[in-house]
Amino acid sequence: MAAPTSPQPPTFQQLIQRLNAYWAEQGCVLIQPLDLEVGAGTFHPATFLRSLGPEPWNAAYVQPCRRPTDGRYGENPNRLQRYYQYQVAMKPSPDNIVELYFDSLKALGVDPLVHDLRLVEDNWESPTLGAWGLGWEVWLNGMEVTQFTYFQQAGGMECRPVLGEITYGLERLCMYLQNVDNVYDLIWTYGPPDSDGRVTPVTYGDVYHQNEVEQSTYNFEVADVAELFHRFDACEREAQKLIELGLPLPAYDQVCKASHSFNLLDARRAISVTERQRYILRVRRIAQGVAEAYYAQREKLGFPVLKKAAAGQEAA
Amino acid sequence: MAAPTSPQPPTFQQLIQRLNAYWAEQGCVLIQPLDLEVGAGTFHPATFLRSLGPEPWNAAYVQPCRRPTDGRYGENPNRLQRYYQYQVAMKPSPDNIVELYFDSLKALGVDPLVHDLRLVEDNWESPTLGAWGLGWEVWLNGMEVTQFTYFQQAGGMECRPVLGEITYGLERLCMYLQNVDNVYDLIWTYGPPDSDGRVTPVTYGDVYHQNEVEQSTYNFEVADVAELFHRFDACEREAQKLIELGLPLPAYDQVCKASHSFNLLDARRAISVTERQRYILRVRRIAQGVAEAYYAQREKLGFPVLKKAAAGQEAA
Repeated sequence: MAAPTSPQPPTFQQLIQRLNAYWAEQGCVLIQPLDLEVGAGTFHPATFLRSLGPEPWNAAYVQPCRRPTDGRYGENPNRLQRYYQYQVAMKPSPDNIVELYFDSLKALGVDPLVHDLRLVEDNWESPTLGAWGLGWEVWLNGMEVTQFTYFQQAGGMECRPVLGEITYGLERLCMYLQNVDNVYDLIWTYGPPDSDGRVTPVTYGDVYHQNEVEQSTYNFEVADVAELFHRFDACEREAQKLIELGLPLPAYDQVCKASHSFNLLDARRAISVTERQRYILRVRRIAQGVAEAYYAQREKLGFPVLKKAAAGQEAA
Repeated sequence: MAAPTSPQPPTFQQLIQRLNAYWAEQGCVLIQPLDLEVGAGTFHPATFLRSLGPEPWNAAYVQPCRRPTDGRYGENPNRLQRYYQYQVAMKPSPDNIVELYFDSLKALGVDPLVHDLRLVEDNWESPTLGAWGLGWEVWLNGMEVTQFTYFQQAGGMECRPVLGEITYGLERLCMYLQNVDNVYDLIWTYGPPDSDGRVTPVTYGDVYHQNEVEQSTYNFEVADVAELFHRFDACEREAQKLIELGLPLPAYDQVCKASHSFNLLDARRAISVTERQRYILRVRRIAQGVAEAYYAQREKLGFPVLKKAAAGQEAA
């Protein structure tokens, strides 16, 4: 079997490459995923922390998301305990952000005029991050493929100016583009040609199926509950200490770790409904402490990115 | 100031985009960074675990590397406690891998015939991963920019066939290409144009300087030593349990976490010279256990990627 020379539809990795090319063209910093376990792209400091304060910021990145309760032992065709989001964060949110988004779909070969594309109002809230925004889900032929949010608050602080966030569900979007029903059948890429010039497709299943089976088992059946409770407490304590020392960035790492410990405890059904709310509030408290310390730190530095943009204008 | 329309030399993010395009063209799976704190790209399962057993594998990815002892509070122009490696892993190692590497430099605008390019023999060993290989450092005009390794062993197991690993130091390579002396001056990208069409460069310092200052303080002065000792023990215990249950992938996450706890303890000078060796051996023991369990698991699955490649050949 030979790969098409210019494969249409895109492979999974081409989808990412095209989104990178498109958003780089719009002036976004292409940043790498956060190297911590998180449940959503919003947790990346490139969205959560950069949404605070007056400094302009434009970034795009992939974020692997670990959501232990969503695991299905590799047996469900479209539910994964670990999947990929593509996240765009622009502050201030450009007036034409919806247009920019539609153009990104065009760059992927989806013509918004031909396909059934619907925007469904869906305001967004992250109770753990103390964040909320006005938003929409984007449905493409009946499948939710993107979430749009105008951040109003993050870490309990007002966002001024407002940050615009676009979150693509990469697997779903790619399943749509490749017209496959099972995430594990997605073509990730084509391998190198063998001696006869033939190439073999590498699927999402080749890369991640074993991982889904094993991690689902770990999340639901094995993860050490006593240790996770201990870790939650330890991360909360460390975050608190770091906030007091005016070190929001390492403090924020601890927020992410506390949050992931909570998610694992949730998958282990170790937290009762009443306790649940209390744990979410504990994460929110340290997330808010980090947000305030981060804002204070940037203010102390004189909001350097804002200053630089202003200086560029004066020099011109 | 206006950005060149086709900026030569590449910005930091263009360097990554070009390496991605080049290695994708060679049949590599472009994979995302591991979402755990690790000290080197080799720790990514896409190298360490995929180096085991007979299945073919070709991958390329960026990996953020956290090396707490290398922090310099943002004051040193080329030492960072967190930096980026670009890693290529090919198994079996293609006969022309060195040529492929030189061609990758050409794709970045470096002509190996014009520049002073030297290969210096430097066999590589990772005591914690129980891995070693025959290798070379690549020096470009007096600066080490790449490491080449032919994996002989990983997790104490023979690599058959041998995996070829190429590790580019992205910051150093980019500093060379952009001809800057200070990593924080690297141009990461250009922001979106303002109302007068002017764009402002976004530097590496804009993105990461504050992080280097705060994380250095955390690593050297604040990280909770008692908790890190506790975490090392807990991760080792959890890894051991998961190995026994035949769950090498979640077990491996615990190996990475134990290793990073050790690196932080090292930065806090909490481990004596004699204890040091003992801790390294403890990480190696669980890394070896994971390697053996992973091999057993792939064997039980019938080495599916190998089978698929063979079936492709028969079908043709």
